[in-house]
Amino acid sequence: MNIKMILKSLGIVLVVEAICMIPSLLVSAIYGDKDFMAFVYSILTCFLIGFLMYRIKADNKNFYARDGFAFVALSWITVSLFGSLPFVFSGAIPSFIDAFFETSSGFTTTGSTILKQIEGMPMGVLFWRHFIIWMGGMGVLVLTLAVLPSVGASFFHVMKAESTGPSTEKLVPKLGQTAKILYTIYIVMTAILVSALLFSGMSPYDALVHAFSTAGTGGFSSRNLSVGAYGNVFIEVIITVFMFLFGVNFSLYFQLIKGKIRGFFKNQEFRFYLGTVLIAILLITADLSLNGLFSVGESVRYSSFQVSSIITTTGFSTRDFNLWPVFSKIILVVLMFIGASAGSTGGGMKCIRFVLMFKIVKREIMNIRHPRAVHTVKIDGKSVDNGVLTNVMAFFFVYIIVFVSAVILVSLDGFDLVTTVTSVAAVISNVGPGLGDVGPMGNFSAFSGFSKILLSFCMIAGRLEIFPMLVLFSPSSFKKSI
Amino acid sequence: MNIKMILKSLGIVLVVEAICMIPSLLVSAIYGDKDFMAFVYSILTCFLIGFLMYRIKADNKNFYARDGFAFVALSWITVSLFGSLPFVFSGAIPSFIDAFFETSSGFTTTGSTILKQIEGMPMGVLFWRHFIIWMGGMGVLVLTLAVLPSVGASFFHVMKAESTGPSTEKLVPKLGQTAKILYTIYIVMTAILVSALLFSGMSPYDALVHAFSTAGTGGFSSRNLSVGAYGNVFIEVIITVFMFLFGVNFSLYFQLIKGKIRGFFKNQEFRFYLGTVLIAILLITADLSLNGLFSVGESVRYSSFQVSSIITTTGFSTRDFNLWPVFSKIILVVLMFIGASAGSTGGGMKCIRFVLMFKIVKREIMNIRHPRAVHTVKIDGKSVDNGVLTNVMAFFFVYIIVFVSAVILVSLDGFDLVTTVTSVAAVISNVGPGLGDVGPMGNFSAFSGFSKILLSFCMIAGRLEIFPMLVLFSPSSFKKSI
Repeated sequence: MNIKMILKSLGIVLVVEAICMIPSLLVSAIYGDKDFMAFVYSILTCFLIGFLMYRIKADNKNFYARDGFAFVALSWITVSLFGSLPFVFSGAIPSFIDAFFETSSGFTTTGSTILKQIEGMPMGVLFWRHFIIWMGGMGVLVLTLAVLPSVGASFFHVMKAESTGPSTEKLVPKLGQTAKILYTIYIVMTAILVSALLFSGMSPYDALVHAFSTAGTGGFSSRNLSVGAYGNVFIEVIITVFMFLFGVNFSLYFQLIKGKIRGFFKNQEFRFYLGTVLIAILLITADLSLNGLFSVGESVRYSSFQVSSIITTTGFSTRDFNLWPVFSKIILVVLMFIGASAGSTGGGMKCIRFVLMFKIVKREIMNIRHPRAVHTVKIDGKSVDNGVLTNVMAFFFVYIIVFVSAVILVSLDGFDLVTTVTSVAAVISNVGPGLGDVGPMGNFSAFSGFSKILLSFCMIAGRLEIFPMLVLFSPSSFKKSI
Repeated sequence: MNIKMILKSLGIVLVVEAICMIPSLLVSAIYGDKDFMAFVYSILTCFLIGFLMYRIKADNKNFYARDGFAFVALSWITVSLFGSLPFVFSGAIPSFIDAFFETSSGFTTTGSTILKQIEGMPMGVLFWRHFIIWMGGMGVLVLTLAVLPSVGASFFHVMKAESTGPSTEKLVPKLGQTAKILYTIYIVMTAILVSALLFSGMSPYDALVHAFSTAGTGGFSSRNLSVGAYGNVFIEVIITVFMFLFGVNFSLYFQLIKGKIRGFFKNQEFRFYLGTVLIAILLITADLSLNGLFSVGESVRYSSFQVSSIITTTGFSTRDFNLWPVFSKIILVVLMFIGASAGSTGGGMKCIRFVLMFKIVKREIMNIRHPRAVHTVKIDGKSVDNGVLTNVMAFFFVYIIVFVSAVILVSLDGFDLVTTVTSVAAVISNVGPGLGDVGPMGNFSAFSGFSKILLSFCMIAGRLEIFPMLVLFSPSSFKKSI
């Protein structure tokens, strides 16, 4: 691996992170909160270390796929480590492990928290906690690519490793240009959301932090009771709709801008995503109302918010779904694993992979029924390469393996089965809350330090869709033979 | 599909089933129990209907893959339906749905029961309950192939659909001969087991029924407290060892007979199977003894029995593992899904598939690390066809999908999450007991009729490794396009 070039690039990422801390510094200054100096120290630390790393001389500027994948994994670990500094320096989260958990949770847009008491935190630190969700949503490195004046084509692997979904397409031939377009769409949509929230009566600060959380599908809230704290149906509807919208593949919005409206609604992943959302809302509404928990109207309100929140892996809640019937809870857990669309800010395994895997199973049945015919898997009219299909299926398997391995390790903490299993499900799919002790009214503070670190790595593995972490941590002596 | 030929072949299967009821009839006669006439009626019913179906004229004798797969699925449903008759006619299980559940559970070697009280059942019916496990273990249709004087080569699809594992090899060129060899090994091993159990002090009746249950990896016991009822360490050791042995690919025993001893221990699936068993025993022993539940010696005894029982999907128990720490419970649930070796009588997804999938993931990482090299997946020195790899991965996905779908439907019964999830896991992997209300001291009697039928179909789908059921139930209008 080209270690010098990787370290040098990490330096750039750290400098960008230092710059990204400035808005939080300003917020802290505005509110005159005591966390101002924490940001000054954090910014200086990131900038200095980043600058020193950037000065590393790398003669070989080649960036192969393996370098790109390892670099992305290292970047996410690095930004989470350094992003913890404001929490630790300000004393808002004294334990570094806890701060690392909270920061990883932010960047990966998970939204799981170790905080028992959110209200009353210093305003700058709280702002930072939400701003990192917004950065992580579209991608820390995509952001870096967007702000850098020019990047080589070899950085395509970086974008590929960081973006979600099985195949990454450049919207326009130039990589930096693609990153800029994505961030422009992202900023415009976030701005519309902020305006809508302000209009519905939220304070500017709350509107901003909730918009960051929604846009990045993170799910941190500045309120202990999450979005439910407002008890405002307009806010809930706005956030329901926007969570759904941020779970759509951003390249579809680019198509929409270019006037291809039919392509939007004919897109197979979008149809699967929309269909799943509608069916889940219908089933949970029926379950809640038939079991007499809420009226039909309330059931529609709570179920659509929760379905939109869970499938996009945001993790906001308006009700304690931990108390809902088993049928509804299982559907929510299934939605965690499905996740949002590829190329969105959402997590999970992504709808497109399920569409493809169902088609692969269908093809296997066709192979039994008509063994002599050749059956190809097509998506949106184009046939899909077998390499992509294999990768999708291998991803599904390795995702389950990582999930199960983490469950086994976390079970050593001795929590009950439901808490243990759903805590890992909630972090690996970047949802945030699970069931049991980690339900929407609970938090992750009671886990051991070991589990917190493990869960943080699960968040990053989930956000980067496993393979970058595997490339980073697989022994370099990996033999060529399989 | 060649429906006439399928119905005609089903007739043969029913006649074989009638013949297989004769030993139970004799047992009933010996014990002078009141279930004698129930077997007379059952045998007559099976024989008559079977004979009438066999008389159907089928001009086209071709049996394509799709016919073979559908035939196998239909056969298993049919033998389970007609196998229920002795239970219903004798009044031992008055409800037909309950009897169907119990019979499917037997044939598929699951071992889940709806009986609250096993001791005191009529001796013939109890014998039948265990004998069907033994038949189902090696395969009802393999048995039919073994007893038929000659079968066409086109019946290879039948054997392929019924045997476990991703690829089916004939041991010798002739299909009927292969079936005879498999059954000979099976009978000899069962006989050795019966002798060992007699030697350790079991009554002849108990030795027979427990040998059937062990050989077929079914897990029904004639005692309410399962094997734990004997409190006899010799019996436990014998059953532990034999459960493990029946979870080995039978073609390896054929190799052993032919003197290829090195091949046995170098076989990659066997190594994975053995390694998993040893690691699981080690971990659970540590968990049980460190948590102070048992002494180290007892921990070894109970954990090795339980691990051997669960990974081979037998489902016997000597202790209520429902009361063990979460760590041990989760490992047991993971073993349920892994299952035994291909070509054994055990269930689950099979070790070979996990070996292959880990190799596929390794290849994906190699593709990132060395994109220009060509990486092939090899097993036991031979490279594996991409079609087989795709099928293995598609199987993993569809297994999980069937599991999750069944969990959603069963959750409508309103049991707690652990009971709901593990009940389905226990039946689809043909284990028997799960956790919670369906733990080793519980049973499946409290589920709704709908859930019982659904779980019975899950058992058959699990035993036949899903695809035969999918071919049978997928709409015949299945379009050619994917």
